[in-house]
Amino acid sequence: MIIILKHKTPKEEVQKLMGEIEKLGVNVHLSEGSEKSIIGLIGDTTKIDPRKIEANRNVEKVMHVQEPYKKANRLFHPEDTVIKIGDAEIGGKNICLIAGPCSVETEDQITEIAKNVKETGAKMLRGGAFKPRTSPYSFQGLGMDGLDLLQVARKNTGLPIVTEIMSTSQLDRFARDVDVIQVGARNMQNFDLLKELGKLDKPILLKRGLSATIEELLMSAEYIMAGGNEKVILCERGIRTFETYTRNTLDLSAIPAIKKLSHLPVIVDPSHAAGMWWMVEPLSKAAVAVGADGLIIEVHNDPANALCDGQQSIKPEVFENLVKDLRNIATAVGREIK
Amino acid sequence: MIIILKHKTPKEEVQKLMGEIEKLGVNVHLSEGSEKSIIGLIGDTTKIDPRKIEANRNVEKVMHVQEPYKKANRLFHPEDTVIKIGDAEIGGKNICLIAGPCSVETEDQITEIAKNVKETGAKMLRGGAFKPRTSPYSFQGLGMDGLDLLQVARKNTGLPIVTEIMSTSQLDRFARDVDVIQVGARNMQNFDLLKELGKLDKPILLKRGLSATIEELLMSAEYIMAGGNEKVILCERGIRTFETYTRNTLDLSAIPAIKKLSHLPVIVDPSHAAGMWWMVEPLSKAAVAVGADGLIIEVHNDPANALCDGQQSIKPEVFENLVKDLRNIATAVGREIK
Amino acid sequence: MIIILKHKTPKEEVQKLMGEIEKLGVNVHLSEGSEKSIIGLIGDTTKIDPRKIEANRNVEKVMHVQEPYKKANRLFHPEDTVIKIGDAEIGGKNICLIAGPCSVETEDQITEIAKNVKETGAKMLRGGAFKPRTSPYSFQGLGMDGLDLLQVARKNTGLPIVTEIMSTSQLDRFARDVDVIQVGARNMQNFDLLKELGKLDKPILLKRGLSATIEELLMSAEYIMAGGNEKVILCERGIRTFETYTRNTLDLSAIPAIKKLSHLPVIVDPSHAAGMWWMVEPLSKAAVAVGADGLIIEVHNDPANALCDGQQSIKPEVFENLVKDLRNIATAVGREIK
Amino acid sequence: MIIILKHKTPKEEVQKLMGEIEKLGVNVHLSEGSEKSIIGLIGDTTKIDPRKIEANRNVEKVMHVQEPYKKANRLFHPEDTVIKIGDAEIGGKNICLIAGPCSVETEDQITEIAKNVKETGAKMLRGGAFKPRTSPYSFQGLGMDGLDLLQVARKNTGLPIVTEIMSTSQLDRFARDVDVIQVGARNMQNFDLLKELGKLDKPILLKRGLSATIEELLMSAEYIMAGGNEKVILCERGIRTFETYTRNTLDLSAIPAIKKLSHLPVIVDPSHAAGMWWMVEPLSKAAVAVGADGLIIEVHNDPANALCDGQQSIKPEVFENLVKDLRNIATAVGREIK
Repeated sequence: MIIILKHKTPKEEVQKLMGEIEKLGVNVHLSEGSEKSIIGLIGDTTKIDPRKIEANRNVEKVMHVQEPYKKANRLFHPEDTVIKIGDAEIGGKNICLIAGPCSVETEDQITEIAKNVKETGAKMLRGGAFKPRTSPYSFQGLGMDGLDLLQVARKNTGLPIVTEIMSTSQLDRFARDVDVIQVGARNMQNFDLLKELGKLDKPILLKRGLSATIEELLMSAEYIMAGGNEKVILCERGIRTFETYTRNTLDLSAIPAIKKLSHLPVIVDPSHAAGMWWMVEPLSKAAVAVGADGLIIEVHNDPANALCDGQQSIKPEVFENLVKDLRNIATAVGREIK
Repeated sequence: MIIILKHKTPKEEVQKLMGEIEKLGVNVHLSEGSEKSIIGLIGDTTKIDPRKIEANRNVEKVMHVQEPYKKANRLFHPEDTVIKIGDAEIGGKNICLIAGPCSVETEDQITEIAKNVKETGAKMLRGGAFKPRTSPYSFQGLGMDGLDLLQVARKNTGLPIVTEIMSTSQLDRFARDVDVIQVGARNMQNFDLLKELGKLDKPILLKRGLSATIEELLMSAEYIMAGGNEKVILCERGIRTFETYTRNTLDLSAIPAIKKLSHLPVIVDPSHAAGMWWMVEPLSKAAVAVGADGLIIEVHNDPANALCDGQQSIKPEVFENLVKDLRNIATAVGREIK
Repeated sequence: MIIILKHKTPKEEVQKLMGEIEKLGVNVHLSEGSEKSIIGLIGDTTKIDPRKIEANRNVEKVMHVQEPYKKANRLFHPEDTVIKIGDAEIGGKNICLIAGPCSVETEDQITEIAKNVKETGAKMLRGGAFKPRTSPYSFQGLGMDGLDLLQVARKNTGLPIVTEIMSTSQLDRFARDVDVIQVGARNMQNFDLLKELGKLDKPILLKRGLSATIEELLMSAEYIMAGGNEKVILCERGIRTFETYTRNTLDLSAIPAIKKLSHLPVIVDPSHAAGMWWMVEPLSKAAVAVGADGLIIEVHNDPANALCDGQQSIKPEVFENLVKDLRNIATAVGREIK
Repeated sequence: MIIILKHKTPKEEVQKLMGEIEKLGVNVHLSEGSEKSIIGLIGDTTKIDPRKIEANRNVEKVMHVQEPYKKANRLFHPEDTVIKIGDAEIGGKNICLIAGPCSVETEDQITEIAKNVKETGAKMLRGGAFKPRTSPYSFQGLGMDGLDLLQVARKNTGLPIVTEIMSTSQLDRFARDVDVIQVGARNMQNFDLLKELGKLDKPILLKRGLSATIEELLMSAEYIMAGGNEKVILCERGIRTFETYTRNTLDLSAIPAIKKLSHLPVIVDPSHAAGMWWMVEPLSKAAVAVGADGLIIEVHNDPANALCDGQQSIKPEVFENLVKDLRNIATAVGREIK
């Protein structure tokens, strides 16, 4: 951490500040410039709050040198983390496909889709039971009944299930019956929820918030990991920008960035990013080419009548053709889709 | 709502789609252009999910004509909503000042600040007991003990208290002991929380999310109002943009926009927007000039030693001078600070 | 085009507005809703300025139905445009590689790099003679001398040259000696320059502005095409978002979007997008996978001593390995790198 | 400037890099941390290109400590710059009003509006002769004829004229006949134009680009000042964000930021920011309250029939009422509108 002092800060104020910082357990180092002086902090600064230092009226700016996250940091954990869920594996050489409908609708629907995507190569089943909707008047998901249906689909296919939690009040049921608990983009900084998930021994799929930086995503992962649960899977799903043609802008540079900064696996959700079914194919291919550890794709047997987000769902036959291409791209970049 | 069809959509498909839409309870109207045809929907479209229609493969785009919110809409409620909390009033001609520290620290701290700001003209006391922090290693607030201290400060000064809720598990305590429940920017689309708050008879201060559009903010207000609680106060607190000099970019155009679209009162938080104490003064003045119904300002008696966000807090004496200027600006725009 | 009228607009005002619009050469169609009425415009609306209509105080909003560009529109030109430059071809099945240093420095430098990249498979040579730099104190390029050196490199290798124009005053020289004239991101809406380029019979490489929407990029292409020059190559090079880890956010969804909306070829610049050499490889792979018609990559034989942007340049040997992988990905998506 | 080195950079590489940097004329200072080492640069770093240093493969990141601009920097020029144009003055205690139509249309139009706004208190006349339009099919301005009409209006009223230049080819005429040359947002980084304007002895009104940071705006001012022309007036006119309700988001925090960083005067353009006439009033008031040195406002006697941007123009009588309120707000913040 580096502290830039204001022009003409009196010497005694500098000394006082340095003394206060040393009490926080780090070494300090003053470097006096012609216009501005800087104080360098040496040691573990993870637990020092830069804003607290900025509150000092002689401080102009505080800049990070070290990343503010520790458990998620590749610096302290150089090997890739690989997370196993039943037969599925996320991280490492393999690319993991997760597929299924936006929301669970009926037993037939979810079971049929589950069988279809399994046959094509998906290793996990996605499906929403609780749906975050912008409008209170939109379909909100089947709730607990949806979870029941997901369990039926799992029983019939053996596919582990991934579904989104929306409140700490749903925690017990999710901990018992769900294989991977998804935290949606809108809850990425629902810190109370993250803390509770940190107490579980269960993989968490953490989606990047619409306006979250890569660093903030990793800090949210750190919340879960700091609680003791290190099974975090990150997910890039598009960020909010000025461009309105696509619903969000898929930030594929985030994948190599995250692979460099962290050891955690990271997957891509091309369906929510663009919000248009015909973009799912090219974006999925790009995601595999750029180095993602997996994909989570919306597949629906009847998109036009889906209760939710049919406009971004592809049909099982499209998914099948897509996976063929993905296998070839995976090979071209030294990866594999089992 | 307007549906733009794809080029060369077969007539029978158009008819089929029109039939389906009519079943949703609205009238339809076809307008055939040389390149693209459009279907207009006439009637109450609030409850029609545009994405469901976009799932139809013949549909190119769906565009809103009417706003998707109803209870928050000024069209159906032309007069300004005025919310009373004890002696305070938000909305109408009066401009309401809310002030206090970022977080509650000690009984002495909160009580002293409360007395100070009351004397200067604040009508409510703000103070965080539960703090949403990016890092799990930062100070997280005093929690329930913080609420106790806020109650002491209220008892000593008579000021109603405004404080942030972070989880549905805190709901009972907040419902009992807090005067205005604040929903922070990160929880603006925590829909489970909004639904629960909709069941209370208690004013809710709803902050705009960092990447939320004005329409999304109003849709979140609609969640609370749809549940039966119409006492919603909106708050602009800066949005995330590419500019990094300020922590966020305060969107003051949102104030006249919201006043036009909705009857709900809207206030401004200049402290969180810029994240720098010396910007609080000019931004507060601009907020009053632009038409805000109030301000929520961080005031701390010892910012340099504040446990949280001292860099954006102003001292009581600065607040006092500021309020003098604000009164004059209020007069210049036909408003009043009591 | 659709015009949404304000609530309670008097009938005679509606009639008057409809009359005025009909004079612009389109048919109009009124659709009266319970809350808001809309006027639909049928015919060629390309030449109608929506803002002029919005100036009418009874108009609430004007929405496009048809794209505002015509010559760039795939609707009126369904087949892909293929542009030939010497032996190179952009558009169609082939993927075209353009490579070279950020800026031309010496005859040896540019010739050596040109030979290297040609051997690896590049079909054109890039190199800046005039450099747009944020700071007036940074190296501004060799100017006309740089163009001389590029011509030497072309003579020695046969590779057509691509280089950036910065002012209409450079037009004659560029028209004579450059094979593809590049318009940089900062000049994408330098309309005077675009108009002049529209008078040439020379391919133009038009880069997307940092904050330009896809539609605005196509409108800038339309400026050139409206002047008579239809040889426009589009280029995605990253947009400005809130994320600061990468210099810009490469918007790969723009590629399928542009392919859908327009017949013009579109390439990707992974070097400027991320601003970091180690991201060039994964982003190039993703660009090919997503459907780009080519890549423009910064390659330098000595990045650490480059006069400009060495931090985003890759070495010739890295480029060589990259191209091997790109060929395989191209095959996987049904394309080819000759 | 601070250089953060990669983890485990060999000592000899660090020494080598330090030697190279010293040759650039600054002192260096190494500070070895447990994880990462940093090199501090002491002296005038304005002319050091941070990207050149980032090109070194051992460097992780380069961070500014000092601002990269010098002539625009308040640090080296603490007093406010005041620019005089005829009787008008921008900077200092006074707030300068500039008003006029979006584009010059006829002699009657421009003269009538000029008289109107002069009477109300405007000290300069704005009016576009060359108009940057997104579409090649929109009205492009009267060009040189427009300049003739502006001169007539100046002769009739005595008001100095402000109008936008779009190309270096217009330079001679502008230098001769225009009082303040405006550089539009789209040309803020048209560096060739900025360099030419730097050679004049004529005030330049430099508008912030749609996606330009405050620092980039100041760097563009530096381009003009480095050429010898220090009469630069900055203008905030809204930035591009995800919010689409307003055309752009007016960034009023930029005003106190610029006042802190630079001695140059800064004004606000509320008309282009929001793109809606009814927002001009509240945004103008906010601009004065926040500390702007002036306003540039679009006033048209017949907005509904304006050839350009009528939707954001206010009528003379609205302007008159607005100025009354602005005078009161100016007084409230210790300023004055003469």
